[in-house]
Amino acid sequence: MELSAIYQPVQEDLAKVKDSLRSIIKIDFPWLSEQLGHVIKGGGKGIRPALTLLAGKFYHYNLKYLLPMAASVELMHTATLVHDDAIDKSEARRGKPTIYKLWGEEPAVLLGDYLFAKAGEFVSDTQSPRAIKLFSQTLATISSGELNQFFSAFQPAQTRQHYFQRIASKTASLFSLSTTSGAILSNAPEKSVKALKEYGHNLGIAFQIVDDILDFTGTEEELGKPVGSDLSQGTLTLPAMLILERYPENNPVKSLFENKDKQRNIELAIELIRDSSIAEECYAVASEYCTKACQNLSLLPENSSRQTLTDLADYVTARKK
Amino acid sequence: MELSAIYQPVQEDLAKVKDSLRSIIKIDFPWLSEQLGHVIKGGGKGIRPALTLLAGKFYHYNLKYLLPMAASVELMHTATLVHDDAIDKSEARRGKPTIYKLWGEEPAVLLGDYLFAKAGEFVSDTQSPRAIKLFSQTLATISSGELNQFFSAFQPAQTRQHYFQRIASKTASLFSLSTTSGAILSNAPEKSVKALKEYGHNLGIAFQIVDDILDFTGTEEELGKPVGSDLSQGTLTLPAMLILERYPENNPVKSLFENKDKQRNIELAIELIRDSSIAEECYAVASEYCTKACQNLSLLPENSSRQTLTDLADYVTARKK
Repeated sequence: MELSAIYQPVQEDLAKVKDSLRSIIKIDFPWLSEQLGHVIKGGGKGIRPALTLLAGKFYHYNLKYLLPMAASVELMHTATLVHDDAIDKSEARRGKPTIYKLWGEEPAVLLGDYLFAKAGEFVSDTQSPRAIKLFSQTLATISSGELNQFFSAFQPAQTRQHYFQRIASKTASLFSLSTTSGAILSNAPEKSVKALKEYGHNLGIAFQIVDDILDFTGTEEELGKPVGSDLSQGTLTLPAMLILERYPENNPVKSLFENKDKQRNIELAIELIRDSSIAEECYAVASEYCTKACQNLSLLPENSSRQTLTDLADYVTARKK
Repeated sequence: MELSAIYQPVQEDLAKVKDSLRSIIKIDFPWLSEQLGHVIKGGGKGIRPALTLLAGKFYHYNLKYLLPMAASVELMHTATLVHDDAIDKSEARRGKPTIYKLWGEEPAVLLGDYLFAKAGEFVSDTQSPRAIKLFSQTLATISSGELNQFFSAFQPAQTRQHYFQRIASKTASLFSLSTTSGAILSNAPEKSVKALKEYGHNLGIAFQIVDDILDFTGTEEELGKPVGSDLSQGTLTLPAMLILERYPENNPVKSLFENKDKQRNIELAIELIRDSSIAEECYAVASEYCTKACQNLSLLPENSSRQTLTDLADYVTARKK
């Protein structure tokens, strides 16, 4: 199932979110406007704003507050990507050159800050101190997760717990913010807020595991960036952990982490993944999280939004990019 | 007059702000805790949180909201410094090595993000959507001002208007947020909010002009960083503008901006400032802004806080670091 079909129930309102995001491009500084345009028109999947709108559909769907919230989660996501690219010195994302590549590291840091600020402006329009606090807490969680990733780069001795903690911080926390804030802003009862929070968390974990698999199994065209980027940054993902465990001799991940022949070892690691059951096993783990996510939905009212959130969980493990 | 004497009316509550800031050091990640400790214990002048508390003293002084607001303006300031140092590759600040110098560029970017997030958490505790929105707007203003500074670096043809716009964005906006939020959170009438907003703006402009003078006239020990740092980064400040205007022949600022013999030209520029009336003229401009700031206070109730804000304006032009 294609994303555009899954989004059907919130398609019209998602377009309004995009309009809100585009409105921030029109500002006083032409050079900033150019950069903002590059980032915002770049367009991602829009999963996070869709989650906010969909999570807001179970009780009092109030677009006045859900719209700025949805815009703010997408902007926060964009801001973290701009900073990540600067930190990782990544030259391409979504098939286009990054801000880092086009303008350099310094403007990338400052533009990211600007986008965080704009995300903060949007979230303040929700008028909800609870949603606003959650927004800030999530940003703290994401940046501490990224710091954690940075300081554990190129370290082969990491536990699964460490991996799951890391992806919970850097990815699942924002998925969870997206659904939780939708629930809060539609005046959902607390048990529904909790259910949607857990759905977001589980979906986010699954999403990141699949991202980590695709980094090995995808093509550069599908990924919009070089294959094996995670390994190249020294990030130990689940598939890479399985390689480390299964192949005690001549291990390409171990060699790469020891700073040996980067490109060759990335190619070897990709071959190992393709010739083994590792990707399949990782997909099975992701599927477990998607199953949990769907179970979280069971106590919510049955409506089209609930079906969409279920379809989204299926999409996450089936996606190719 | 010493700052500690000026702060007397809010000394006790400023200590509570520091306690709040220290409380964020105690977290789960020991390595992050180490970095946070380094930044937060570094200690600046505390002017911004003092301004929030002092501006809150004219009407309903409610520490429950003023305390997190004061902590948030100080943290936002700290976060911008951490990012500035990463961008400028500055190795020392306040006489100590920077996060950039100690841990590198990547952790500096992420730690800055973390501090912005923590500042956001504090500001959300004010429960005031207006103060929260102002906070985010100010962060947007500061980062667009920094971007502006980055893109105009090493360009000698800049107008005074450009300079004042730049320092209004990067410095005065946060001074203004500090006072305005104090007024809002103490339920000040709108005309007092406006007066305190303008006081903050004018004081901030004066503060930055003096900073720009001290960058030439101070010693490395007083400044806690190398003399001539602004020129070295290509930032055209008011004293440097006056050098450019006064000395059409063999101008060291022009030569430096053309990437010639950096260290020698910084020394020549410092000599020119010391042997001319340029510093004095810049101080006169700063004083004008301080006078305006004091005039802004005239419609506020007369109390000890008003006297303190007047003393602060005097301090700003008399300070040596």
